[in-house]
Amino acid sequence: MRAADLAVPYPSIGMDDGAIDAVRLMAEKHLPGLVVCEPDGRPSRILPGSQVLRFVVPRYVQDDAALARVLDERASEGLLEELAGRKVRDLLPRRPDVDLAVANPDDTVLELAALMARTHTPLVAVVERDRLIGCVLLSRLLEVLLAPGPA
Amino acid sequence: MRAADLAVPYPSIGMDDGAIDAVRLMAEKHLPGLVVCEPDGRPSRILPGSQVLRFVVPRYVQDDAALARVLDERASEGLLEELAGRKVRDLLPRRPDVDLAVANPDDTVLELAALMARTHTPLVAVVERDRLIGCVLLSRLLEVLLAPGPA
Repeated sequence: MRAADLAVPYPSIGMDDGAIDAVRLMAEKHLPGLVVCEPDGRPSRILPGSQVLRFVVPRYVQDDAALARVLDERASEGLLEELAGRKVRDLLPRRPDVDLAVANPDDTVLELAALMARTHTPLVAVVERDRLIGCVLLSRLLEVLLAPGPA
Repeated sequence: MRAADLAVPYPSIGMDDGAIDAVRLMAEKHLPGLVVCEPDGRPSRILPGSQVLRFVVPRYVQDDAALARVLDERASEGLLEELAGRKVRDLLPRRPDVDLAVANPDDTVLELAALMARTHTPLVAVVERDRLIGCVLLSRLLEVLLAPGPA
């Protein structure tokens, strides 16, 4: 089995799309993060949901658990207003904490496993001619490794 | 809303359970990782699926993408045999790459958001009297932040 056989559709978002649209997509699809594509369509980054929170939760609250505790429950209500007028691009750290792991459609199970091991990631983007054709999830790879069938 | 209201059941595994059982659980439930509990039941670590792959894929294959490419497709078939007789404990690195983020049942949305932001994690274990009562997922938190209701 090859990467193209194991890939499933996975939501992506454009670098210049609205930051709030990225949040809606993650919430709606119950995803911990999204694949981000360049304006030319090429998938280039991962936007982890935690990065959204790093952007909207004030730094002094992140750094002080006791402070987060004493703030009013309503303090969280306007949190996402910080995202108004922001693009996905604005949320991404200049230097990525997590690189997007990219595979070719004909990569083998072993190549995918080695890539996930090396990059510590549970998700690999399968890219053909600069287009995202889907992602291989770590749990799917484990399924295959548990019950290897004919190639 | 508090952590206990937002938590959903999330699979955990014991430190001394079989490593292969952890793999089966991740594959079956489509999870990128598991919460690991100490023998006394206290949740203490995260086992990321990528850590399983780091354990079973030989280091020289992880480090050499070209080598993974030329190896026979069948090279991946016996990969999980490495796990025979191993416990979950054996898979975990001595120093965790990722800490288990732990919240109290009455933690607020802001506390959860600050915790996920600080620890870069999409998952928080809600623990009451040393027992895991569930996990809060980042996507659920984003849902709440998008449509804040009455407390």
